[in-house]
Amino acid sequence: MAPQQIVETMYANDAFSQWLGIEIVAVGVGTAVLRMTIRPDMTNGFGIAHGGISYSLADSALAFASNSHGRMAVSIETAISHTAALKVGDVVVARAELEHLSHKTGLYRVAIVREELGDLVAVFKGTVYRKEKEWANPTPAS
Amino acid sequence: MAPQQIVETMYANDAFSQWLGIEIVAVGVGTAVLRMTIRPDMTNGFGIAHGGISYSLADSALAFASNSHGRMAVSIETAISHTAALKVGDVVVARAELEHLSHKTGLYRVAIVREELGDLVAVFKGTVYRKEKEWANPTPAS
Amino acid sequence: MAPQQIVETMYANDAFSQWLGIEIVAVGVGTAVLRMTIRPDMTNGFGIAHGGISYSLADSALAFASNSHGRMAVSIETAISHTAALKVGDVVVARAELEHLSHKTGLYRVAIVREELGDLVAVFKGTVYRKEKEWANPTPAS
Amino acid sequence: MAPQQIVETMYANDAFSQWLGIEIVAVGVGTAVLRMTIRPDMTNGFGIAHGGISYSLADSALAFASNSHGRMAVSIETAISHTAALKVGDVVVARAELEHLSHKTGLYRVAIVREELGDLVAVFKGTVYRKEKEWANPTPAS
Repeated sequence: MAPQQIVETMYANDAFSQWLGIEIVAVGVGTAVLRMTIRPDMTNGFGIAHGGISYSLADSALAFASNSHGRMAVSIETAISHTAALKVGDVVVARAELEHLSHKTGLYRVAIVREELGDLVAVFKGTVYRKEKEWANPTPAS
Repeated sequence: MAPQQIVETMYANDAFSQWLGIEIVAVGVGTAVLRMTIRPDMTNGFGIAHGGISYSLADSALAFASNSHGRMAVSIETAISHTAALKVGDVVVARAELEHLSHKTGLYRVAIVREELGDLVAVFKGTVYRKEKEWANPTPAS
Repeated sequence: MAPQQIVETMYANDAFSQWLGIEIVAVGVGTAVLRMTIRPDMTNGFGIAHGGISYSLADSALAFASNSHGRMAVSIETAISHTAALKVGDVVVARAELEHLSHKTGLYRVAIVREELGDLVAVFKGTVYRKEKEWANPTPAS
Repeated sequence: MAPQQIVETMYANDAFSQWLGIEIVAVGVGTAVLRMTIRPDMTNGFGIAHGGISYSLADSALAFASNSHGRMAVSIETAISHTAALKVGDVVVARAELEHLSHKTGLYRVAIVREELGDLVAVFKGTVYRKEKEWANPTPAS
């Protein structure tokens, strides 16, 4: 399967990414660009976006980018630094890029910026474990 | 304000933690125990809980535990390792504990376990920046 | 090979751990306890131990603990939070403990405390990739 | 003090960076480029550079880059992903770059590449706490 097909298949079944209102802007081998808008039901007790919102966006970008190579990949370790608070109505864009790929693992970086200002609001990194099972042939026992 | 009051005030305004169905089990100085149940709208393309769900639970536990000391605290860096997949219906408990507190920063560890089996499903760590502003007296300029 | 034998074999060839003056206090399946003393040649421009010193101690503890299960393991991601400065003459003890083990990966936590005071000076976490190659039989191609 | 002066002052007192044979290639506001060569006494039990070596190089780059702004800065959280093994004789270059700066904290990324091949061998990120004390005027109480 091509990267675009893999990501569309993943997204079609990804209820939480749909709840977040994530829009797929672009997909390539080892990369994914996503966009979403901060809503009132995404805020925390300080009236700004809950830290889990930008994490979730970045984690979806990681999932899409790391599966785009054609083999199934699952997250094993992730970290995020929140560098600016997000308010209701802010539109953010997450760009996942491959840092390093080996046979069994992959390392990706996701930068989240506010679309209008272009300022960095979070930096995320994620390491995935790459299974043998391929998206082209998802049915064999693994 | 007492830890319990601070956390109740935070939770009352925390729309996303409410959407997650987070239940506050216990709160103390530097600690918080939360519970939630995995729902179908929290799953990803693999039919298991999206990584953002357990992160969000842990991040709420961090926010509650780190504000419980009485001064406002904001997350600056967090990391999570996902050690087991969560399915719809799983009940999980997150326990945040203080690792180290200085005047300006705090370090917390959050372990998430499945309530029934007690097995570890995620380990989270978070560093917060502690503002001067206190919960007892939130109005002065800070 | 037993955990103690594996670690002794590793240490015998580990020139940098020897330079650090690391002493092996205890080894078990998935655990290792190490001790070392801060020397003048380990300090940085602030007159305290360079951050790389406590990291290196923790990383050795990770290597010993994660290889102790009998299969060769290599670090893929590590993080450390420095919670207190170390001075020349301070004796520190690092204790590595298994958090979670799967077929392909392992997650360990290492706490470093000052021996005399027992106060936490650093918290480290490390994820390793576990190879098929075993310590009992190190010669086959892998 | 200018960035170059600050870093030279730090390096002149940094015994461990000197032991590592670190060479300062370039320094700017929020950035530092360092070079070093892997020696036999830097290797671990697998005959490759100990993970603490590339961490230490990156941590020095973080210290230099984060102090270059003129205020004293100390590391609070760092993480490193090792993406390739280093052998004796390998020359590596670490480049620290500012990701985000606020009044109290700074976030930096350090990429380490092998000089000859240009391949990535480690990716490091570090968060620092920025003190009030300035390098130009280091004596006031802080």
